[in-house]
Amino acid sequence: MRENEHKIMIEFGETDGAGIVYFPNYLKWFDNATHQFFRSMNLPLSQLKEKNIILPLIDVRCTFEKPLHEDQWIVVKTTVGKMSTKTIQFIHEIFLNGERVSYGYELRGWVLKGENGIAAQPIPEEIRELMTCDDVVNKKEVLSR
Amino acid sequence: MRENEHKIMIEFGETDGAGIVYFPNYLKWFDNATHQFFRSMNLPLSQLKEKNIILPLIDVRCTFEKPLHEDQWIVVKTTVGKMSTKTIQFIHEIFLNGERVSYGYELRGWVLKGENGIAAQPIPEEIRELMTCDDVVNKKEVLSR
Amino acid sequence: MRENEHKIMIEFGETDGAGIVYFPNYLKWFDNATHQFFRSMNLPLSQLKEKNIILPLIDVRCTFEKPLHEDQWIVVKTTVGKMSTKTIQFIHEIFLNGERVSYGYELRGWVLKGENGIAAQPIPEEIRELMTCDDVVNKKEVLSR
Amino acid sequence: MRENEHKIMIEFGETDGAGIVYFPNYLKWFDNATHQFFRSMNLPLSQLKEKNIILPLIDVRCTFEKPLHEDQWIVVKTTVGKMSTKTIQFIHEIFLNGERVSYGYELRGWVLKGENGIAAQPIPEEIRELMTCDDVVNKKEVLSR
Repeated sequence: MRENEHKIMIEFGETDGAGIVYFPNYLKWFDNATHQFFRSMNLPLSQLKEKNIILPLIDVRCTFEKPLHEDQWIVVKTTVGKMSTKTIQFIHEIFLNGERVSYGYELRGWVLKGENGIAAQPIPEEIRELMTCDDVVNKKEVLSR
Repeated sequence: MRENEHKIMIEFGETDGAGIVYFPNYLKWFDNATHQFFRSMNLPLSQLKEKNIILPLIDVRCTFEKPLHEDQWIVVKTTVGKMSTKTIQFIHEIFLNGERVSYGYELRGWVLKGENGIAAQPIPEEIRELMTCDDVVNKKEVLSR
Repeated sequence: MRENEHKIMIEFGETDGAGIVYFPNYLKWFDNATHQFFRSMNLPLSQLKEKNIILPLIDVRCTFEKPLHEDQWIVVKTTVGKMSTKTIQFIHEIFLNGERVSYGYELRGWVLKGENGIAAQPIPEEIRELMTCDDVVNKKEVLSR
Repeated sequence: MRENEHKIMIEFGETDGAGIVYFPNYLKWFDNATHQFFRSMNLPLSQLKEKNIILPLIDVRCTFEKPLHEDQWIVVKTTVGKMSTKTIQFIHEIFLNGERVSYGYELRGWVLKGENGIAAQPIPEEIRELMTCDDVVNKKEVLSR
């Protein structure tokens, strides 16, 4: 099972008037972590987009266990959950000092953007294998450009 | 059943490189709509905070049916779903030209912030009644300060 | 001189851990107000973009006089300042209860996006006139789609 | 002269419908870089805040030379510019592959938050020295909690 760890420093601007992280930022981090997951496979979403493949959101959920504060380093762990022919679920868990503080998922489609609009496509077999069969834990930042 | 309609103009800056709204903004709109729901009861969350009552997020979910673009006017309809002794679920539905394009919920706690930390509290009876028994549809912006 | 007034309710999520508005939001409001300025002339930037005309930022400045808080209604007043052949300066002033609390400007180019890249263009005469000769104060929200 | 280099990977969510970085994010990066500058001196702004010292924005300016795109790594270089008794100017320059693509400054006050409101204070001598006399280029991320 492929896993990616994405390390993030929480910035002051991500907190709100309650002094804790403003919750839509968790969903932003989920998106960031999915992009990082693809970079770790040497397959950045920005390159897929050039081939007219996009991964739009269908459903997203996030559960909050403990609040987060500025200047904390967190790790977002990402793995692939359920896959159907044309959709992928990304499981995200957020850790602070080894303790899980939040978790959730994104459900995304595998979609071809053509001249006549967009259409869901079967996820190519080699991509499925890359995402699930490899037994890799990537913890590095990946420089794509 | 109390319902609030919160009208929002989608700004250019809320779109992303795919030319559609960046999805964490939907969750921001859910939060905005909950604040507006409370303002419509003449009970702004900023006033509750002065009494040390806060409503932290426990769980949030959003389903995306159609993409949204800049310069569109949307309406976020908010009602109260399930309530337990110490938690409230806010149901949000987003409409574009009368058609639903997204829906989801926020689950929030009713929490007292004291000197020794925070503690969930039973939601006061008059607040429960205000949120559920009134048969009101508010569509106005409410000026609180 | 054309002037546009853009009314904004400050949302909780726009504040930071210091309990006041996080300053990059002022620049977001400048951008929102410029879009509203063009909508008020019946010339939304989204329509100009369909004709491959874009108005990229060259320079931006913002001065902060008083802090702003959640639940406040503010007004952003926008007028055109200096214009050169290919650039326009938008002057923005932010008011709270009639008192100015911030001001600044955006300097933008008038740019044609072609197949071989982008190139600054002379601002059409009719646009210059529309922006400066009309003696109009628009305070309405403009529904463009 | 102390200098800090803050490395940032541009996220997809920071781009807008024009496919380039939405400009208020540059100001967010300026803020992030100032926080990093203070962390590099072992003096995080979150710790100063616990001593009721805050550094509110007075004026900010940003000039844009080249557009930026998702997946690019940039470096924000920060140094101290002009200092008066109670204010500090932070100079920020953004580089992509060694080429400068944007620059600007933040002017901030040195302010004590007391029970009766806030009041600008003379910047302590040891802080002045720390910020300007040291001949240090910090390029590391600094873990503060």
